[in-house]
Amino acid sequence: MQTETQTQQTVLAHIGLPRIVVVGGGFGGLELVKALASANYQTVLIDKYNHHTFQPLLYQVATSGLETSSIVFPFRKRFQRQRKIFFRMGEVIAIRPDDRQIDTSIGSISYDYLVLATGANTNFYGLKDVEQYALGMKSIVDAIKLRNTIIRNFEQALLASDARLRNSLMDFVIVGGGPTGVELAGALAELKKHVFPKDYPELQLEEMDIYLIEAGPRLLSGMSEEASSKALHYLSEMGVRVMLNTAVKSYNGDEVLLNNNEKLLSKTLIWTAGVKANPLPGLKPDCLAPSGRIRVDVYNRVIGYENIFALGDVAVMEGDPAWKGGHPMMAPPAMQQGRWLAKNFKRLAAGKPMLPFRYFDKGSMATIGRNKAVVDLRGMHFQGFFAWYVWMFVHLMYLVGFRNKIFVFFSWLWSYFSYDKSNRLIIGRPQ
Amino acid sequence: MQTETQTQQTVLAHIGLPRIVVVGGGFGGLELVKALASANYQTVLIDKYNHHTFQPLLYQVATSGLETSSIVFPFRKRFQRQRKIFFRMGEVIAIRPDDRQIDTSIGSISYDYLVLATGANTNFYGLKDVEQYALGMKSIVDAIKLRNTIIRNFEQALLASDARLRNSLMDFVIVGGGPTGVELAGALAELKKHVFPKDYPELQLEEMDIYLIEAGPRLLSGMSEEASSKALHYLSEMGVRVMLNTAVKSYNGDEVLLNNNEKLLSKTLIWTAGVKANPLPGLKPDCLAPSGRIRVDVYNRVIGYENIFALGDVAVMEGDPAWKGGHPMMAPPAMQQGRWLAKNFKRLAAGKPMLPFRYFDKGSMATIGRNKAVVDLRGMHFQGFFAWYVWMFVHLMYLVGFRNKIFVFFSWLWSYFSYDKSNRLIIGRPQ
Repeated sequence: MQTETQTQQTVLAHIGLPRIVVVGGGFGGLELVKALASANYQTVLIDKYNHHTFQPLLYQVATSGLETSSIVFPFRKRFQRQRKIFFRMGEVIAIRPDDRQIDTSIGSISYDYLVLATGANTNFYGLKDVEQYALGMKSIVDAIKLRNTIIRNFEQALLASDARLRNSLMDFVIVGGGPTGVELAGALAELKKHVFPKDYPELQLEEMDIYLIEAGPRLLSGMSEEASSKALHYLSEMGVRVMLNTAVKSYNGDEVLLNNNEKLLSKTLIWTAGVKANPLPGLKPDCLAPSGRIRVDVYNRVIGYENIFALGDVAVMEGDPAWKGGHPMMAPPAMQQGRWLAKNFKRLAAGKPMLPFRYFDKGSMATIGRNKAVVDLRGMHFQGFFAWYVWMFVHLMYLVGFRNKIFVFFSWLWSYFSYDKSNRLIIGRPQ
Repeated sequence: MQTETQTQQTVLAHIGLPRIVVVGGGFGGLELVKALASANYQTVLIDKYNHHTFQPLLYQVATSGLETSSIVFPFRKRFQRQRKIFFRMGEVIAIRPDDRQIDTSIGSISYDYLVLATGANTNFYGLKDVEQYALGMKSIVDAIKLRNTIIRNFEQALLASDARLRNSLMDFVIVGGGPTGVELAGALAELKKHVFPKDYPELQLEEMDIYLIEAGPRLLSGMSEEASSKALHYLSEMGVRVMLNTAVKSYNGDEVLLNNNEKLLSKTLIWTAGVKANPLPGLKPDCLAPSGRIRVDVYNRVIGYENIFALGDVAVMEGDPAWKGGHPMMAPPAMQQGRWLAKNFKRLAAGKPMLPFRYFDKGSMATIGRNKAVVDLRGMHFQGFFAWYVWMFVHLMYLVGFRNKIFVFFSWLWSYFSYDKSNRLIIGRPQ
């Protein structure tokens, strides 16, 4: 282990070019760094993991559909042979703008330009008990934890002679009717229909209930009304109990109390109801919007700083005319901002002025189950088999790594024809 | 969580057939249970994991060649639709032969016949300091831990300005020149040659040393002299420093002291030098051989019991004329015993006497690197490309699950043509 103090400089050679330090290799950070490979900068990517995570498919890892390694990609592999790009694994502790340095778990790193792409985390809106007992869906570790929990619950349900206990083990409550909640509910419904009856002939699968709780009046509130109602239709058809206009008041690890005072019995509460930005200490307080996101101008420059930028979920852009409240906290704005910012850095290096960013909304999509998806794409709304096909195509296209694309494609093919989800593994020793 | 006491019976219906309880779903246990599917018994498999682990390929998971999920297989998936086979996830705590019961972490289970197939664990031969700091190679968790360690060491080596520290991070000491040690050393040498130079252009890869320490006079002592010398030749060619007739005296997590008083600097000591059987408490003391293995007769019946059997690594058979000291602690004897014991159970059910087991030794093999393997097969000894091909074919054949075979085959193809090992992931949060 390193015993250096925080103020010690980490070992990182200067290569005679201005240095851009990018914090976080999610969708936005990765696009930025990729596009900077050809620029006249030394680009340093720092991330607490050594791999990019394709978050949109985490729910398939959690429900045994995909293996972990297919949806992650090692940064070093991505940037092999790109001599101006440097990767460091570490966590950023604070920014020191006056010194043009960041303090990290592996020492300090100096920068000429700093880009914050630290993304967002689960937002429990202050519900401490929910935070304590609920599972999130933001990281690989979250997904593996949920997978372990689902399977362990069923192994324990087999041993439960008490019906109440068995019910609480076999029931699942998902909070949040956005894409993650909808997709997860659908995937659990498929496990219930196609996989668990074969795996657990000793259990009565009718006892398994899947609840999807949404505080608003419709699912997928970011999509068209058509998509929302079709998603609701699909899920109801698949046996998911969707509760709209309903919120969670408290959870004790066993019983969920709703705002209509109804109680649901479940050992597993999955919280996909909100995200909050991950800003870093050291910026002036007026950089932060009330939402906690970092305020940036149309160049993704943090308000009040010349050489600090922020993009993606962690940033809220002021000045994009069509998006007064900032862009949605999703992959597409982050990726577009990343690519745009790389262009602006190249312009800066060439002595040209930066150009303002405009988000081009291509639409969004969610999959509910086999042959069932909803897509809003450039003004068109469609659902069903073709939408499902488009959903798969788009996700394969954006997945990082050719090998990953092939493995995921093959896994999907396999699942489609076998009605199976193969990775029903509890990794690690049971507690 | 279950709050039952150990003496409480676990929930498990009797189905009107005599019950065979099999403890452990490794190679031996799995073959036995598979073959019992058609027998007139209720077969209960209990394992602490919910999946079978294909141990011979663990070293490829540890060296980023294969993903975890390709070499494990969920028991429930294997036994879908087989109504006389029951799986329970749990750990056995003790046997109570007089009550025909076992006590487990999920309650007691009664049996008519009990089969112990608990395998073996790493044997540190009483070296407490080695046990504390060394990594084993017996489970998925071991393999993931080693993978995390290798990659984290390199990430840290990048930050080490001190040459001694950097060296100890970049050097690896493998103890034990059996198949696991040889294969692991070869795989590390391939990472050094093909992968790490591209991943870590900031490091001098010549600083990476791989030591393979073997106490005996040759590698692969279970194989032919020809195989041993060829393996030594291959490894030396690949830059592995093989030290024969050498043993480890102590290890403090940083420095390995050898019995010739030489010292090796390394943060990573991988111990593949021995295994010891995993017997269970509750058997009469004279059932155990001095090695710790359970003594069984030619029917795999534990000496002194009528209805308790043991097979595979945990058992030492007395009476197989060609194998006075028992069979080698490897997959093939375990699998043959498992299949044979199933036959004998069927004979018992039909009122026929059991038949004595004889081990048929088909030979053994080890792979060192691309196009490099050594094979002893039914009296033939061959090495090189064809041996490597045979090694791959045999491993694919024995791997459980068609999907796994395809995924592993494809991974190997991919690695072969790309010279890459794709799963260079640190899963989990860095400590």
